[in-house]
Amino acid sequence: MNLAIPKILKLEDLSLVEQLTAKINNKTKPLGSLGQLESLAVKIGNILGTTTPCLTQPQLVVYAADHGIVKQGVSAFPSDVTWQMVQNFLADGAAVSVLARQHDVSLTVVDCGVKHVFEAHPRLIVKKLGDGTADSSCTVAMSVEVCQQAVQNGIEIVRALPGNVLILGEMGIGNTSAASLLFSKLSGIDIEQCTGAGTGLDSDAVIHKTKILRQALEFHHTVPDDKPLEVLAATGGFEIATMVGSLLEAAASRRVILVDGFIVSAALLVASRIDSSVLDYCVFAHRSGERGHTILLDHLKGVPLLDLGLRLGEGSGAMIAWPLLQSACVILNEMASFEAAGVSRESVS
Amino acid sequence: MNLAIPKILKLEDLSLVEQLTAKINNKTKPLGSLGQLESLAVKIGNILGTTTPCLTQPQLVVYAADHGIVKQGVSAFPSDVTWQMVQNFLADGAAVSVLARQHDVSLTVVDCGVKHVFEAHPRLIVKKLGDGTADSSCTVAMSVEVCQQAVQNGIEIVRALPGNVLILGEMGIGNTSAASLLFSKLSGIDIEQCTGAGTGLDSDAVIHKTKILRQALEFHHTVPDDKPLEVLAATGGFEIATMVGSLLEAAASRRVILVDGFIVSAALLVASRIDSSVLDYCVFAHRSGERGHTILLDHLKGVPLLDLGLRLGEGSGAMIAWPLLQSACVILNEMASFEAAGVSRESVS
Repeated sequence: MNLAIPKILKLEDLSLVEQLTAKINNKTKPLGSLGQLESLAVKIGNILGTTTPCLTQPQLVVYAADHGIVKQGVSAFPSDVTWQMVQNFLADGAAVSVLARQHDVSLTVVDCGVKHVFEAHPRLIVKKLGDGTADSSCTVAMSVEVCQQAVQNGIEIVRALPGNVLILGEMGIGNTSAASLLFSKLSGIDIEQCTGAGTGLDSDAVIHKTKILRQALEFHHTVPDDKPLEVLAATGGFEIATMVGSLLEAAASRRVILVDGFIVSAALLVASRIDSSVLDYCVFAHRSGERGHTILLDHLKGVPLLDLGLRLGEGSGAMIAWPLLQSACVILNEMASFEAAGVSRESVS
Repeated sequence: MNLAIPKILKLEDLSLVEQLTAKINNKTKPLGSLGQLESLAVKIGNILGTTTPCLTQPQLVVYAADHGIVKQGVSAFPSDVTWQMVQNFLADGAAVSVLARQHDVSLTVVDCGVKHVFEAHPRLIVKKLGDGTADSSCTVAMSVEVCQQAVQNGIEIVRALPGNVLILGEMGIGNTSAASLLFSKLSGIDIEQCTGAGTGLDSDAVIHKTKILRQALEFHHTVPDDKPLEVLAATGGFEIATMVGSLLEAAASRRVILVDGFIVSAALLVASRIDSSVLDYCVFAHRSGERGHTILLDHLKGVPLLDLGLRLGEGSGAMIAWPLLQSACVILNEMASFEAAGVSRESVS
């Protein structure tokens, strides 16, 4: 297929950053005293191209798919949990469901390739590329053509969504394995450092998982590290590939992208290898408890807002961090300046 | 005066903690995967005495007062900023004003001893104990009788407030000096480790501030470290003393207490020396960028939710963290169990 990657504006114009910084510095508070919330406000303003940013119609999209590598015993939960959790999302019972409702954020689930046939649901988009990927430990998870189709699907999903914020979550038993493979292959960092307990493996099971992933990397050693879509086709998964397209389109349409944990960060790593400008549009919600996320964040130069030991995925960390983005905007838009409030400035030092 | 410290129930019954933990462990998510949000949910449930905690009518109270020690050049801002910021709070222009509005939290300001006469305002409580404290570097900031009155005021303020959550903030140019003195005197930790830049002193000015505070400690060296109210009377301030009473009453009336930054933590340290059970009721919103807060948190065994380099005070960090408390409750109350959602449990490890 002929995949057209959307064009992303690189945010190189520093004059808006200067205007945003000056605006914050003139608010009634000591200089810099709102710490990371100030840089967040500048970032959001810069992404949206205004000194009065307003986050509108935030869209939480949860991308779901199954992974063939699960048959190698790399997950604490059976593959069936993927479709069961999709139903749980749609029935408003999952963590991310109740958190999205708390913040009145719209939740859409995408079936990117779950081994299950779902009944139609107004909040379910079906973009199924198969009944789960093939087992990436001994074959390619999908063909490059299917991988391109997944990216195209991701682009189209975001194009159809309103608002100026994309919040990404995922569900897929086995997808920490795919994310670890992607991270190791694209970064050159040893698979052991990239591999964690996922949904809750014990230390012996993590050793087994690492062994399987090392075999997978050996099997795919001829795949060139500088061909992100070929690497992605080799490792899977369908949901990660679909997210890659959504990330690129969200940046191209100048939305704020709220990045959840390890899996979404791995999708972002792939997207950034296609166009590094995508990173300009990303806010990192949290540092996950999943081993590998800290070095992946470092690799992406991402500074997370939260560090609460979350390791659930689904977009749950992103939803917990979401009100902080709103706080950054109200500070920028609603706080009084020194002049307006008649407050004196620093007198000493 | 005859100060009656309210009686606080020590939360020693572990059966409720076990019930809360079991309830969370049965939610549709890997065990422990919501990290610190899970312990927060258990804590809130335990404080409110129920497995279905609901946070009602949260009250943000900002305690304001002036400090005589400011004349020694310990702050980057002039004392006038205290009253100017009180007016900014009431005019909805300060950081904490816009954050409280974002979350629909009621904001009350208490004039505990600001050097200014305010016009009446429906959200201003006047419990003035003087036009600022005396200069604690060379005299007691207030008498023990006035200090007791301040504590009594704090008790009465909370008694009159509805809801089951107290969120504390403060405003008082010079109050990091009082907080540093309290912390050093009550803990025995050297004043240098307890002293930071406050509203934004440069390094030379911090050295000067530390020198003044060391003089103050020498002046008050005969005040016994195990008499918290005598120490508090020596150092001030009026707002910290009033907060001590409010903290004790909030715990006694079994409210969730959301602790902001360095100053509120110093008030809590004093309260905990009167009755250590108060700590059972506290949630620590954030680790402040103010030097000394990290060791003060360690001293109080407080694990903060956020670590964003905030150092504004006013209750701003508490307001930014507030939605995380609500998230903890929705997870406990609204998420489906494995049984209810028909989701399979762990199969491996």
